[in-house]
Amino acid sequence: MLSKSRITLLRSLRQKKYRAEHGLFVAEGEKLVPELLKSVFEVQTVYATEDWLKENVKIAKHAAELISVSEDELSRISSLVTPQKVLAIASIPKYALDEKYVLKNYSLFLDGIRDPGNLGTIIRIADWFGIKNIICSTDSAEVWNPKVVQASMGSLLRVHVHEFDQEDFFTRLKKVSENEKIEFPAIYGTYLEGTSVYKTKFASAGIIVIGNEASGIREKTEKFISQKITIPSYNLTNESGKGPESLNAAIATAIVCAEVRRS
Amino acid sequence: MLSKSRITLLRSLRQKKYRAEHGLFVAEGEKLVPELLKSVFEVQTVYATEDWLKENVKIAKHAAELISVSEDELSRISSLVTPQKVLAIASIPKYALDEKYVLKNYSLFLDGIRDPGNLGTIIRIADWFGIKNIICSTDSAEVWNPKVVQASMGSLLRVHVHEFDQEDFFTRLKKVSENEKIEFPAIYGTYLEGTSVYKTKFASAGIIVIGNEASGIREKTEKFISQKITIPSYNLTNESGKGPESLNAAIATAIVCAEVRRS
Repeated sequence: MLSKSRITLLRSLRQKKYRAEHGLFVAEGEKLVPELLKSVFEVQTVYATEDWLKENVKIAKHAAELISVSEDELSRISSLVTPQKVLAIASIPKYALDEKYVLKNYSLFLDGIRDPGNLGTIIRIADWFGIKNIICSTDSAEVWNPKVVQASMGSLLRVHVHEFDQEDFFTRLKKVSENEKIEFPAIYGTYLEGTSVYKTKFASAGIIVIGNEASGIREKTEKFISQKITIPSYNLTNESGKGPESLNAAIATAIVCAEVRRS
Repeated sequence: MLSKSRITLLRSLRQKKYRAEHGLFVAEGEKLVPELLKSVFEVQTVYATEDWLKENVKIAKHAAELISVSEDELSRISSLVTPQKVLAIASIPKYALDEKYVLKNYSLFLDGIRDPGNLGTIIRIADWFGIKNIICSTDSAEVWNPKVVQASMGSLLRVHVHEFDQEDFFTRLKKVSENEKIEFPAIYGTYLEGTSVYKTKFASAGIIVIGNEASGIREKTEKFISQKITIPSYNLTNESGKGPESLNAAIATAIVCAEVRRS
């Protein structure tokens, strides 16, 4: 039987405020939870059906606590439409920003990505293309939001997502670049106008800035951009006389990352 | 006042069965409905607030019927979480497949894309990259599903989406290719293994086959593939020892389309 206090804790973790307070997040499902248990993440509690626990004795040992629940109980604590057999609570990891690594590699800066599904998909794309660091502006969706966790499909266990104010982030980077004599990387901004991504000669290290879904890259961030890039459209304007306005933020991220890796 | 019969009709159109029976679909929102009204689509009825009707007198004329509704009434007929000021019912267009055009250009074949959001995003990508025809296998999400309509963001007014059994589609194409002496196009299948998309020499015409979200390209379709292509991963395997399994279907579509257009 699930105690009332456990149900209250689990439900409270759907809110950012309580995730921050407890330093915990929730992950669900038969794919994600085993990945989480095998990772360096600290899993506090696993709530699972008897079935699942029997079939996963070995991995389940990585959790500090195991609680057997009925499917009915699971559906009460799950935030999925179709609850799966297992749900876990884990500690939110604290990553220090490795400025030297950022200066020498490719990273993403998300300037206010608000949709949790988009953020999750972008984390998955970063993982695919070997981008280890994502820096989110402070008004982006929160990375430990259950929707982001589920949409990232385990990539959240490999990609480090940081939250910084743009001013703060670029200033830190500049300082380390000067102190350590590491060249400052190119800052590519994705716009509707700019150099075609197909013609851009991507530097060996850089930061790709992706704008907010509705308003794009904001003024506060724009001043740090060293090169504006764009994904050319080959749109059909034959019937309604008007082509598409833009690509979804995650789609744009994927195409830019693919071009960086190709070149 | 909205009559009961109108509410019943509107609600029934959330189901594929009734959309097919009436030959109608629903589009919502202040961006999409005006685009729809300006297009060649036949708009039967526009349900909108007084405000909206006043501000859009000119475009609204393109609808056969205009009904003024309160915000409260709108929220009862809308399938959006946050209903917007306007909703329209339009006739589902019937597109004949132009096999000659398909033989000479790029098209997409979706082998069981089930998620309406993915299908909508793929339609938007096709529009961006000037791909006029999408052929869906009969078990794909239905294109006039409200979620697909909204996710396509107007691209549905430009891209033609057809539904065909794979056998039927490729047989038709072959026949026209032989009769008209038009070279049969390359059929590219997106797999986890194959020639890198960055190294593929894309032909001047082709069909890009995208697999189902869970099971990829199925046997029934695989036999038509002439070249297997893949998006190379640069994944991080440093911490959990395992990289990402795959990219989302829409993301993969975007990257392949971008590469086709680049080359």
